[in-house]
Amino acid sequence: MDFDAMFSKQVDALKEDGNYRIFAELERKCGAFPRAKSHDDDAPDEVTVWCSNDYLGMGQHPVVRQAMKDAIDDCGTGAGGTRNISGTARHHVALEGELADLHGKQDALLFTSGYVSNWAALSTLGSRLPDAVILSDEFNHASMIEGIRHSRAKKVIWRHNDPEDLDRKLAALPANAPKIVAFESVYSMDGDICPMQEIIEVAEKHGAMTYLDEVHAVGLYGPRGGGVSEELGLADRITLIEGTLGKAFGCMGGYVTGSAAMCDFIRSFASGFIFTTALPPAVAAAAQASIAHLKTSQTEREMQRDRVARLRAKLDAHGIPHLHNPSHIIPVMIKDPVKCRMLADILMRDWGVYVQPINYPTVPKGTERLRFTPGPLHSEADIDHLVEALTVLWKQCAIAHAVA
Amino acid sequence: MDFDAMFSKQVDALKEDGNYRIFAELERKCGAFPRAKSHDDDAPDEVTVWCSNDYLGMGQHPVVRQAMKDAIDDCGTGAGGTRNISGTARHHVALEGELADLHGKQDALLFTSGYVSNWAALSTLGSRLPDAVILSDEFNHASMIEGIRHSRAKKVIWRHNDPEDLDRKLAALPANAPKIVAFESVYSMDGDICPMQEIIEVAEKHGAMTYLDEVHAVGLYGPRGGGVSEELGLADRITLIEGTLGKAFGCMGGYVTGSAAMCDFIRSFASGFIFTTALPPAVAAAAQASIAHLKTSQTEREMQRDRVARLRAKLDAHGIPHLHNPSHIIPVMIKDPVKCRMLADILMRDWGVYVQPINYPTVPKGTERLRFTPGPLHSEADIDHLVEALTVLWKQCAIAHAVA
Ligand SMILES: Cc1ncc(COP(=O)(O)O)c(C=O)c1O
Ligand SMILES: Cc1ncc(COP(=O)(O)O)c(C=O)c1O
Repeated sequence: MDFDAMFSKQVDALKEDGNYRIFAELERKCGAFPRAKSHDDDAPDEVTVWCSNDYLGMGQHPVVRQAMKDAIDDCGTGAGGTRNISGTARHHVALEGELADLHGKQDALLFTSGYVSNWAALSTLGSRLPDAVILSDEFNHASMIEGIRHSRAKKVIWRHNDPEDLDRKLAALPANAPKIVAFESVYSMDGDICPMQEIIEVAEKHGAMTYLDEVHAVGLYGPRGGGVSEELGLADRITLIEGTLGKAFGCMGGYVTGSAAMCDFIRSFASGFIFTTALPPAVAAAAQASIAHLKTSQTEREMQRDRVARLRAKLDAHGIPHLHNPSHIIPVMIKDPVKCRMLADILMRDWGVYVQPINYPTVPKGTERLRFTPGPLHSEADIDHLVEALTVLWKQCAIAHAVA
Repeated sequence: MDFDAMFSKQVDALKEDGNYRIFAELERKCGAFPRAKSHDDDAPDEVTVWCSNDYLGMGQHPVVRQAMKDAIDDCGTGAGGTRNISGTARHHVALEGELADLHGKQDALLFTSGYVSNWAALSTLGSRLPDAVILSDEFNHASMIEGIRHSRAKKVIWRHNDPEDLDRKLAALPANAPKIVAFESVYSMDGDICPMQEIIEVAEKHGAMTYLDEVHAVGLYGPRGGGVSEELGLADRITLIEGTLGKAFGCMGGYVTGSAAMCDFIRSFASGFIFTTALPPAVAAAAQASIAHLKTSQTEREMQRDRVARLRAKLDAHGIPHLHNPSHIIPVMIKDPVKCRMLADILMRDWGVYVQPINYPTVPKGTERLRFTPGPLHSEADIDHLVEALTVLWKQCAIAHAVA
């Protein structure tokens, strides 16, 4: 049987649709963020990264790097085992304490990634709570969708950010079934933020537990970086808060926080937690340093907000359309996968601007976009350069449209 | 609805069965491996780790630590994005090249863990190859089982390490269905090794592809650490080889290797590859240094084999029963979860010997065990101390049995 031919056929279909992914090979340079060295032939040697999810540049913060290096000197590069079999270091335990404190919860549980935390927690809750029903916002992240699918629990999709639809769907379910309402605070592709209070009220009315993904909010929102739930003073009404250490915290890993009983339950039953090598203690140490820093420092968050506001204002001034939303994410809609890649290629090649085209399956077909994430380290000149590049490209597109 | 009560009830059932897990909190000390500082009240301050999967102590190797620290200085602590969206560094690309070379394959694909690589690769193969059937060894690891389950492909279990049973089961399937034979080289809990040549021959006879987990063999077997498939000269007949960077290589991460078409297929479609932050470049750099070192150095492997042989010989000399197998894993069967934990607790408290009790669900009920993994850094004195401890405990058990 010619397996390679079967593989190639499906990949070729992606290519035809313009959805084949080509990774930009970059080397970020400490001290030079958001500048990076490009290893791609078509690009200038140095490019400016405009689509990183290291939102605050914490990945190059001296305190975070030092914590990681100290832990390597101390205890090496890997954990050497699963959490249960020789892989729990004091760094993991301390980080779990830091995370529980960040969200004001009894306990926290560390995973190797945000993806695994969503997948493992939802699949465990959905499969082990008898007759559970998971009510999932229609725009939830792939990791949640896969976790729900894996649980084989009954799944009900509610309209994006629509508490009334959620209310109707909850009301239609048997009163005695355990219900889990799963949603995100900041949706990473549109940058919109959920109506958290309304969702919580609906969930409480029906006795449902709330499962909140704060992956694109932790570190960024709330006076201590506890996410949108902290900013709105609602964290104590959320049953489970999930987050990542790989975005604003600049490291890697994921977690859930909540009651001690719930964390112990997931710890005890989640295959994706149990049967895998623990995070390197050095990564845990770096993440803890990053979280601790962002609990007190407002500088990074303030600078980021300033850059986001400036880029938005300048895009508006130059008539470049972008999605309006209350978050730090600035999507410029292109709505065609081939054009989206072409624009990104030109930005990279001619302008040294790196922004990855966001195509299907990351976003629905027909909503392809460029997604900009300004950070504290983008300068005024960086912003001007980007806006100039987009203005020139937009004019060329207009001309292209006119002569077509 | 009282969710906490539901959680506690299920955890309490684990406690009653003796299967509740208590993690030992340890701090491994560079330069002192296999010694570690214990943070548990009941244990001596310093213990000897006898159950690490950092099989060769590479996690503390100076070359590996230095590579990780250099990369942190160079480009920071995290990747800052998914592989597609700003998260691919030259370190990832270089590591994938190193891995493809290690197994003599066209290409390799990096994942955040071995667990995720199995889960994502098998779920993608099983769900996207039309009418695929996955033939799974009955003792396959949880990460494979979950991947197969997630794929919703037809699954056929064959008897552990039994090529004849596999042959019969393959013969019963439709000739034109794509078939995937999934198995491991070294089974980590019993330490037995599969009859690889026979399995390959059966698979080839039926036109099935072979999916081999070498997680407990890479770095350890084969002249360059390419695993049992390298040792037997069979790597080129395996379609997909999967491995981890978290055990003998002393870091974290997982991978698959195989044809370029297959890697591109998995890269393009596997949700667990696409929608997650990439490994920190520093972790990739450390893993690459570790692999490169073990491609040429035989010292670590030779010393490990020596320690394994010595421990086995001394256990035999003192009449401590252990499973005989051709690998580096020495299981001492206890066959009761409560006794298994009790023995481990006494070893820790009275002897400073840390070996985690292996209970359900890691092994089937009734096969609870202590699992020893001697490494190059265990001294003769360490081995003598361990054997003395076990001998004393065995005598006490015998007395306990006699008076009972
Ligand atoms: C909403 C959301 N949840 C979870 C994840 C996964 O987190 P991680 O990158 O830590 O795996 C992501 C993105 O990667 C995400 O966008
Ligand atoms: C056979 C096998 N495959 C895969 C894994 C998962 O690898 P990792 O620890 O890198 O997630 C493990 C253990 O953890 C294993 O024993």
